[in-house]
Amino acid sequence: MVKGKDKVSEAVIRRLPVYHRFLTEITEKNVDRISSSELSKLTGFTASQIRQDLNNFGGFGQQGYGYNTVELKEEIGNILGMHHHHDTILIGAGRLGSAIARYNGFKESGFAIKALFDYDEKKIGDNVDGIKIYSMDELEKFIKDKHIEVAIVTVPKQSAKEVIERAIDSGVIGIWNFAPIDITVPNNVVIENIRLNDSLLKLSYYLKERI
Amino acid sequence: MVKGKDKVSEAVIRRLPVYHRFLTEITEKNVDRISSSELSKLTGFTASQIRQDLNNFGGFGQQGYGYNTVELKEEIGNILGMHHHHDTILIGAGRLGSAIARYNGFKESGFAIKALFDYDEKKIGDNVDGIKIYSMDELEKFIKDKHIEVAIVTVPKQSAKEVIERAIDSGVIGIWNFAPIDITVPNNVVIENIRLNDSLLKLSYYLKERI
Repeated sequence: MVKGKDKVSEAVIRRLPVYHRFLTEITEKNVDRISSSELSKLTGFTASQIRQDLNNFGGFGQQGYGYNTVELKEEIGNILGMHHHHDTILIGAGRLGSAIARYNGFKESGFAIKALFDYDEKKIGDNVDGIKIYSMDELEKFIKDKHIEVAIVTVPKQSAKEVIERAIDSGVIGIWNFAPIDITVPNNVVIENIRLNDSLLKLSYYLKERI
Repeated sequence: MVKGKDKVSEAVIRRLPVYHRFLTEITEKNVDRISSSELSKLTGFTASQIRQDLNNFGGFGQQGYGYNTVELKEEIGNILGMHHHHDTILIGAGRLGSAIARYNGFKESGFAIKALFDYDEKKIGDNVDGIKIYSMDELEKFIKDKHIEVAIVTVPKQSAKEVIERAIDSGVIGIWNFAPIDITVPNNVVIENIRLNDSLLKLSYYLKERI
């Protein structure tokens, strides 16, 4: 399906979830077809950019007819790997970790949280929405025994590097990192960072320019 | 200080917090000077990209000597408006909202959370780390009376649009939005979105390509 796989740039990959988000909204409103220029108005990307992006994966539209919204949403979901299943753990069962553990987007994206881990011995044995909190001492064994693929990291900055390295050494191949650190992972491991502080500083910049 | 202010692209603005983050790490390690090629190794941006970015704001380096790390960090902090103060509220005092309200990055970025708001009458009067939770009925009056500039939005998707519009109508000029919606705000308002789901789908894509 994917043409010239290696050539798909990160910029394209970054736009695919945006298309998926808008297509989800549109299909919920029972809109059957959409043109690239209508998608352009919604997303803010140019129509030619959109056509070019979707051509990377074979192109789905029929000229003059636009895109079938349900099909396109499904196809983009496939490209994004939404129908793959990933057994997942979350490390750092504090406030942010607990909030993230309850986040609804996981199931539909194929991530199933099997356990939480925390350093704080007082939390061990508790659970968040039925997901049990384990001691960090059990991390390596759990990852290996349960073939965990993905770790969500919501520990403080100070312990993030160690935690990520331990997870990868035990077999984790994907990290969703919320800690404000920069870490280089092996080539065969995928890391995706949520940068709360970078986002806040962008807001700060644009407010300063505005005021 | 800022040269050709209007021409600074969003891509440059996106990289400034990254420079600031690395410079914070470096200065904590008492490193006094850094060259653009050393910054390049750390950030993954090219050295010429870095020099070009910093030239947008006047350029700070001395050829052959590199950058003074403390000065550069301070200057980038100024450009990012970190020394401006913004009275802020948070709307949606659920798990994510409470986690965000406790987030340490606010103070050093100039955002001071003055109140939380929630629809749930049972939460009204409670507090998170000393910050009181108010009823949504009091939103407009509070924003106007206290000259609130920024609203952090951590309500569910369904109520996000209404909440954002009410905040803006009452005088808020900056929105930090965690809800998975796309909303167009007036030209004089700044919105910065945290897209948890987009990030998760990017992780999903790269895992699929890897496996």
